[in-house]
Amino acid sequence: MTRNNPQIVLRRRPSGRPVADDFEFVVNQVPELEDGQVCVEVGHLGIDAFIRTTLEEESFHQGAQIGGVIPALGVGRVVESRFDGLEPGDHVFGPLCSQTYAVMPGAMLRKIDVSRVSPTAWLGALGLTTGLTAYVGMTRVAKVKTDDVVVVSAAAGAVGSMAGQIARLLGASKVIGIAGGPTKCEFLVKELGYHAAIDYRNDDVESRLRELAPQGIDVFFDNVGGDVLDAVLLNIKEGTRVVICGAISQYDDMSNVRGPRNYLKLAERHAVMAGFAVFHFTDTYDEGEARLADWFVDGSLVMPEHVEVGVERFPAALDILMSGGHTGKLLVKVSSD
Amino acid sequence: MTRNNPQIVLRRRPSGRPVADDFEFVVNQVPELEDGQVCVEVGHLGIDAFIRTTLEEESFHQGAQIGGVIPALGVGRVVESRFDGLEPGDHVFGPLCSQTYAVMPGAMLRKIDVSRVSPTAWLGALGLTTGLTAYVGMTRVAKVKTDDVVVVSAAAGAVGSMAGQIARLLGASKVIGIAGGPTKCEFLVKELGYHAAIDYRNDDVESRLRELAPQGIDVFFDNVGGDVLDAVLLNIKEGTRVVICGAISQYDDMSNVRGPRNYLKLAERHAVMAGFAVFHFTDTYDEGEARLADWFVDGSLVMPEHVEVGVERFPAALDILMSGGHTGKLLVKVSSD
Repeated sequence: MTRNNPQIVLRRRPSGRPVADDFEFVVNQVPELEDGQVCVEVGHLGIDAFIRTTLEEESFHQGAQIGGVIPALGVGRVVESRFDGLEPGDHVFGPLCSQTYAVMPGAMLRKIDVSRVSPTAWLGALGLTTGLTAYVGMTRVAKVKTDDVVVVSAAAGAVGSMAGQIARLLGASKVIGIAGGPTKCEFLVKELGYHAAIDYRNDDVESRLRELAPQGIDVFFDNVGGDVLDAVLLNIKEGTRVVICGAISQYDDMSNVRGPRNYLKLAERHAVMAGFAVFHFTDTYDEGEARLADWFVDGSLVMPEHVEVGVERFPAALDILMSGGHTGKLLVKVSSD
Repeated sequence: MTRNNPQIVLRRRPSGRPVADDFEFVVNQVPELEDGQVCVEVGHLGIDAFIRTTLEEESFHQGAQIGGVIPALGVGRVVESRFDGLEPGDHVFGPLCSQTYAVMPGAMLRKIDVSRVSPTAWLGALGLTTGLTAYVGMTRVAKVKTDDVVVVSAAAGAVGSMAGQIARLLGASKVIGIAGGPTKCEFLVKELGYHAAIDYRNDDVESRLRELAPQGIDVFFDNVGGDVLDAVLLNIKEGTRVVICGAISQYDDMSNVRGPRNYLKLAERHAVMAGFAVFHFTDTYDEGEARLADWFVDGSLVMPEHVEVGVERFPAALDILMSGGHTGKLLVKVSSD
């Protein structure tokens, strides 16, 4: 039996912000399985900032090839298997990429339990690049403790949505989100339980932060870089932990990253800037997933979703991500779960 | 009795690298002492990088005023005292500034013991901004341990000279210095016991460091910033501690600091950038001075000195510092100790 496989492939490497012509919609055939492989019908794909960096020639993550599908994490269902341990019908999570059917070694996939949480929760609230990233960042890198004042940038994005809520659940006394525009700022306070929000498009981040946290901040969880990072660095104090999770403001031009101009505040005020990626903390995955699932199921933690429908919307979804046109977890729905 | 007080004062704030016309040599009179004050005949002044930053309008340290003397730490002898606890003949350390006689509250001075070490050792090997800064940086911030690979920038300067030697004495298995020019690189290896040296003017720092430390580095003690910091960041690994002590490459234009462009390597490789100044570790001063004095007296630690003679050489000495025209501790000798 042959299957059509609608895909989005990379037509050329973007220069700056990706545009529609950098991508192409194609329909290929799903190949015959080899031993050890499975075929997965993709349910949802998570649109993460790391995807932008995979489009570069010299990529931090394993990169996209010209003519090839775009790396993306997704959830789906096994439709055919030549791998021991996965059967048709099983729900799985893995690097399914921008396509309708993913054929890959079964060993690259993880079977997920969708009896307690929905499949998309495995991309969002419990997701490796989302909930789990925020969890290890807050617990293992920022080491948030009771009464900390915590600031999160890109706070209405997927990681930021989770990071702020997790900080609150860990006992932070004040959680301040930085986001673009009044709608997102309202979302932070009303939907996610942030104590306060700063609109970086309309507020002076440095002075507003000084008003909101006159004693300085204990933790800054940064997903943005650039001007936002520099403004927050002016508000650090002795002992502040600046956690570098990402830098979405820089990903469109990685050959010309702007470093934090105010980094010497780290010396003046005896503070630390610590970077991490989730894969540095594999020993925390089980603990993190368990706590996140408990919080999510009992409603302490919410993960709003923004869903674009159809694999052909993958490039548009990436543009929404890069321009911040979403709140919460951005997903492309490819097939029904 | 009136005394002439030859001084260097600030004529105007420098724009970029300070030039001779930014300063003026004047001869004022030493005023009568008030209660609690002492008059110190300045022996030597230490020429430290922080001096450059005090010349700015908005200065990190307590700044220089137009027409006023330039902040500098020095050692000297009390010649007159109206302060209990200091008598004529006592050797003291403190913020004596660019002048021949310093009149100030005795409480701002510290009496020093010159029976074991020379007065200038209190500026160099044991000096607050030199030996003690390197000591707290290596022990309390970098937390150097046995078998660490340690890299130091501005390694032939005062702090760098001490930092590399201290790292070796703490058990680092390899200590690599970065300095400008073959003479300084030879000095690092032959005089200071560095295991290897990189000449940033003639070598490719990134690739040379990869050759010298193929497993990556554990500690980078940075006094320079800019290109050097960026090159080293390409060689960090999981767990590397990047210690920000200073950024002399940036001090001539503090309104336009260039941040580390490769700071996202901190996230990719799960590393930390920690800043400090010596005054964050007052609780370590006694321990540090004692160990530094022992090492210095038994010859484990050397502190070469570059001495310019005469208070009128203060601006020239500052230029030597900023252009890296010295090795070891740069001093201006004002009077005999």
